[in-house]
Amino acid sequence: MMIVKIGGGKAINLKGAVQDLAELGESFVIVHGANAIRDEIAEKMGHPTRVVTSISGYSSVFSDEATIDAIMMGYSGIQNKRLVELCQQHGINAIGLSGIDGRLIEGARNKGIRAKQGDKTIVLRDYSGKPKSVNGELLGLLLSHGYIPVICIPIIDENNVAINSENDDIVNLLQEALHAETVVQLIEAPGYMADIGDASSLVRTISKSELEAREARVEGRMKRKMLALKKLTESGAKRVIISDGRVDHPIKDALSGKGTTIQ
Amino acid sequence: MMIVKIGGGKAINLKGAVQDLAELGESFVIVHGANAIRDEIAEKMGHPTRVVTSISGYSSVFSDEATIDAIMMGYSGIQNKRLVELCQQHGINAIGLSGIDGRLIEGARNKGIRAKQGDKTIVLRDYSGKPKSVNGELLGLLLSHGYIPVICIPIIDENNVAINSENDDIVNLLQEALHAETVVQLIEAPGYMADIGDASSLVRTISKSELEAREARVEGRMKRKMLALKKLTESGAKRVIISDGRVDHPIKDALSGKGTTIQ
Repeated sequence: MMIVKIGGGKAINLKGAVQDLAELGESFVIVHGANAIRDEIAEKMGHPTRVVTSISGYSSVFSDEATIDAIMMGYSGIQNKRLVELCQQHGINAIGLSGIDGRLIEGARNKGIRAKQGDKTIVLRDYSGKPKSVNGELLGLLLSHGYIPVICIPIIDENNVAINSENDDIVNLLQEALHAETVVQLIEAPGYMADIGDASSLVRTISKSELEAREARVEGRMKRKMLALKKLTESGAKRVIISDGRVDHPIKDALSGKGTTIQ
Repeated sequence: MMIVKIGGGKAINLKGAVQDLAELGESFVIVHGANAIRDEIAEKMGHPTRVVTSISGYSSVFSDEATIDAIMMGYSGIQNKRLVELCQQHGINAIGLSGIDGRLIEGARNKGIRAKQGDKTIVLRDYSGKPKSVNGELLGLLLSHGYIPVICIPIIDENNVAINSENDDIVNLLQEALHAETVVQLIEAPGYMADIGDASSLVRTISKSELEAREARVEGRMKRKMLALKKLTESGAKRVIISDGRVDHPIKDALSGKGTTIQ
């Protein structure tokens, strides 16, 4: 079993990734993003994506109702269905699901983002939250009948409302349910780079202890990423590979040791 | 078993329909439209929906790639997911699927629409076609595990390409697979009206022989509708109800004999 997380950037070679997956001879699930197309849709629909920064320094998309609409259009709509179509064209019997379908991913809605507005601290409440559980029964049912789940946001909160969520957290939950040996994460970069602007600073391998050291050194979003990676290794993934999704063979390259491998 | 076809107009009371369905105590599947929201999205994305009329007089949406994108955003995206969310809020464990997911609805792509361009007859080829088969195994798997399928276009063609299709044809195929006793169709009108502009001309019941007589008298899209209805009764639906989706209790009203019943 493999979990493939595909980033939502425009430059990711979806076709190449699907071609590779079709030759894999191993079962897998896909979790995909769609932030580039969501932003494009949100802009054209007249509600551009708005990023808010909490007083603790963490930036996130402010997910009001129009943003959830844009997520449904961009993630569950065009990106999910074009990816399922690609899979079908390569003999993978994919089935696209958002986290609300069959209560696949249940979460808890955030209490609010504490942010600055001028001098005042305000609490912004939106439709976002943390995934808490995965419907392993539904995943097992589909996988055991030859269907490959292609998963995206939104997820469903404790009041049955569709909410935005982080794919890193979703991947962690899926890993707990599926016990994948390998987790591949395709991004728009060669892998994890010590210096984000310098491709030659690509880190080839990171051990679990190095992960902890790096986590202690970084801040904000990158800290969250490091924590998510640490969790993945803790929940039994033998290797986690962060690799370039823009190349001809994103999955083959990843599995052959390009990118960053965490073991 | 009941099949519920929900029209894609803005005025359909989705919440009322879902509330009614939650109290039904019977298994069902939903097939929904989203033409209003698709047109809105297509317009805002810069590719307004374009209707073409064939030389035989039949009008249809010209489904180029941008139209399929708009269908994915409008049908599989926002309309499907908001409907699934509503279902979940009313205790219905809905799972939204397009026809391409798990090859739920396979079809054959149209050879082309013969249309006039000035003096010339041209053949317009688009991404549309006729559904030919339903993945009954997948439907059965989901239904037998308590999941309610909420189905929409696109469907998948013989080359694994996502195509547009008519919901009337999809409902007919579902009926052949599911042998529903009742088929409810919610529209933005009181039911089938002899005179489309006159609500008092609502036809309360139509027998199968009347359906044939009416079919012979009408043209174009309405002829197709009549044919589809005839097929439904032939494939074992004991009653087909065309009813008002704009009321407080669309399903309850339909089942209590409001609208037009075909028996």
